[in-house]
Amino acid sequence: MSVPNHFDLLATDGAARTGRLTTPHGVVRTPAFMPVGTAGAMKGLHWREVRDAGADIVLGNTYHLMLRPGAERIAALGGLQRFTTWNGPMLTDSGGFQVMSLAQLRKVSEKAVNFRSHIDGAAIELSPERAIEVQLLLGSDIAMQLDECVRLPAERADIERAMQLSLRWAERCKRAFETAPDGHMLFGIVQGGDVPELRHASARGLIELGFHGYAIGGLAVGEPQEVMLAMIEEAAPILPADRPRYLMGVGTPEDMLEAVARGIDMFDCVMPTRNGRHGVAFTRFGPVNLRNARHADDPRPLDEASDWPSTRNCSRAYLHHLIKSGETLGAMLLSEINIAYYQRLMRDIREAITRGSFETFRMQTRADWEQGDIASRDPA
Amino acid sequence: MSVPNHFDLLATDGAARTGRLTTPHGVVRTPAFMPVGTAGAMKGLHWREVRDAGADIVLGNTYHLMLRPGAERIAALGGLQRFTTWNGPMLTDSGGFQVMSLAQLRKVSEKAVNFRSHIDGAAIELSPERAIEVQLLLGSDIAMQLDECVRLPAERADIERAMQLSLRWAERCKRAFETAPDGHMLFGIVQGGDVPELRHASARGLIELGFHGYAIGGLAVGEPQEVMLAMIEEAAPILPADRPRYLMGVGTPEDMLEAVARGIDMFDCVMPTRNGRHGVAFTRFGPVNLRNARHADDPRPLDEASDWPSTRNCSRAYLHHLIKSGETLGAMLLSEINIAYYQRLMRDIREAITRGSFETFRMQTRADWEQGDIASRDPA
Repeated sequence: MSVPNHFDLLATDGAARTGRLTTPHGVVRTPAFMPVGTAGAMKGLHWREVRDAGADIVLGNTYHLMLRPGAERIAALGGLQRFTTWNGPMLTDSGGFQVMSLAQLRKVSEKAVNFRSHIDGAAIELSPERAIEVQLLLGSDIAMQLDECVRLPAERADIERAMQLSLRWAERCKRAFETAPDGHMLFGIVQGGDVPELRHASARGLIELGFHGYAIGGLAVGEPQEVMLAMIEEAAPILPADRPRYLMGVGTPEDMLEAVARGIDMFDCVMPTRNGRHGVAFTRFGPVNLRNARHADDPRPLDEASDWPSTRNCSRAYLHHLIKSGETLGAMLLSEINIAYYQRLMRDIREAITRGSFETFRMQTRADWEQGDIASRDPA
Repeated sequence: MSVPNHFDLLATDGAARTGRLTTPHGVVRTPAFMPVGTAGAMKGLHWREVRDAGADIVLGNTYHLMLRPGAERIAALGGLQRFTTWNGPMLTDSGGFQVMSLAQLRKVSEKAVNFRSHIDGAAIELSPERAIEVQLLLGSDIAMQLDECVRLPAERADIERAMQLSLRWAERCKRAFETAPDGHMLFGIVQGGDVPELRHASARGLIELGFHGYAIGGLAVGEPQEVMLAMIEEAAPILPADRPRYLMGVGTPEDMLEAVARGIDMFDCVMPTRNGRHGVAFTRFGPVNLRNARHADDPRPLDEASDWPSTRNCSRAYLHHLIKSGETLGAMLLSEINIAYYQRLMRDIREAITRGSFETFRMQTRADWEQGDIASRDPA
């Protein structure tokens, strides 16, 4: 295979893996969670906080960035890493997923997807070639192929048509990516909905083309968790063991723990920041809703054993007050607390795999979550 | 005079002064700018950023905090400094100013001001005694007397009536403050609108009562800058030289520079965070509106000579993009940049007074502001 490999698999424990992915902007420890910086910014976090929380890599949304401020402008300003001041590894999606969910008057053809911008209504064509061109202009360390993602449940014929189109677009993306500078990577995306044979066919087709890494797409789009995990079990074992595997748009801490157990290396999701803005903290005790009145007089922190300062130092009463008052700081603190929790989960997963004790870690972590939050204090 | 003094006047230069105010939660270097943490939070900044920016002391709004989460609750949680995690010096206003501007069905009598909460419509009575009780519950290092602030322009009779009422309330506040723990301070507030004789009478009345410090209130309420400065010139020379002087609710960088030149030691204002949220940066070159399209392709920072990282490292193009896109990070960065600029201005003022070169500093700073922002780059 002529595609260079930038991934070092360091240890495995069952199907779980830990490794190191070397990008032009730095090394990514896997399993890795990529916080989502939609339009060149994380919602409610400074980049320094994303870094401090332990993130090695973040995700940028091609759809948002191509509309505003524009890929050519970002290229002229030195690329996305420099533009944002993040200056570390960045993965960009292809724009396809947001086109499906946000754009107006969307029309998919063999050639491209045509749509109107949700910002100013401008008519835009996103072809596989343009999706790669935009990502090369952005300078992302890891680009994604353009694909068509079908929301589940869907008819098998629709799933198969989109999967086959995505395979043909994968080939065109690979060709367009030939001009990419050394060290930059392109990932293919396994589609096929909830149909095992289609997942197999998609994975085999992509492997035949050859990519730097492989994503599993079209999940976390409405299906039950067991379907998602079953589809990972269908696809992951087929994928080359020496290449990184990225489960797109996932998910809850439990989703990620179970996906790692099935051989996944990379994740992204808006959940930690979005749920944080809505008053929900992810903790060792599972999700905690700070809007609940039971926190109003509680001087205890979310988790006194956490090594993240805000998780350990801010009282539940203060977080409750900030969220109830609509203070920006509430969303900022909970977004930061959640990103830090996700990164700590990844760190602990990596350490457990390295030690060969991932199964024990997984059972203990699930037991902690299932036990739930600490009891309310006595009203006395 | 029986009121202990916690202020050390370290140097003067003309009427400008620099000193040190010792509070139960730490030392405040003056001249000092107090960022405003309205309801127990700064808008768009973590407390660690307020500290890093150089702030020694912050302001909390009694009106907001007494309504939500409530003074008794904050007291039970260990006081406002601990509740917020700020853990440094805090000044609280008396609540009077916000009652005038925010509350509904407000009625001022000799006894108290009665109003309805803007949150839930509850009927509340704020007397001088309750204003002090609330501030003692909050545990503020510096409490303010309850006063009546008249918006200008106003009839002299109205100004005089409010000034006399404020003097009688000052006496009741002082009596209520007798139970305060050692080291906590109460400031009286000079009223009198734009009438010199009333300012004199107010200042003399307060001095006769005796306070830890003296504020000048009822300015920055609609009058031209020259009226504000003239009223400072009337009041400040009467006030005891060994006590801190606080100009309430002021202001722009220029307002503060000119007020320091007339003997003021302390300031507070929402302007750096509010204008930041609206896309305006305060800089060495004067205010810069990042919404302006001229910044869209400009890779230069706001001020490459600044020692504040975001001011020096974020491109104007990035800030423009964040503000135009409505990204929270834009408001966060500009709020932080502005608070840092205000604190640097105070630091530089203190150093200039200490060196005896305040007048040179003042002229140079005004010249920089008047010169305006750096020129746009050539479209080439």
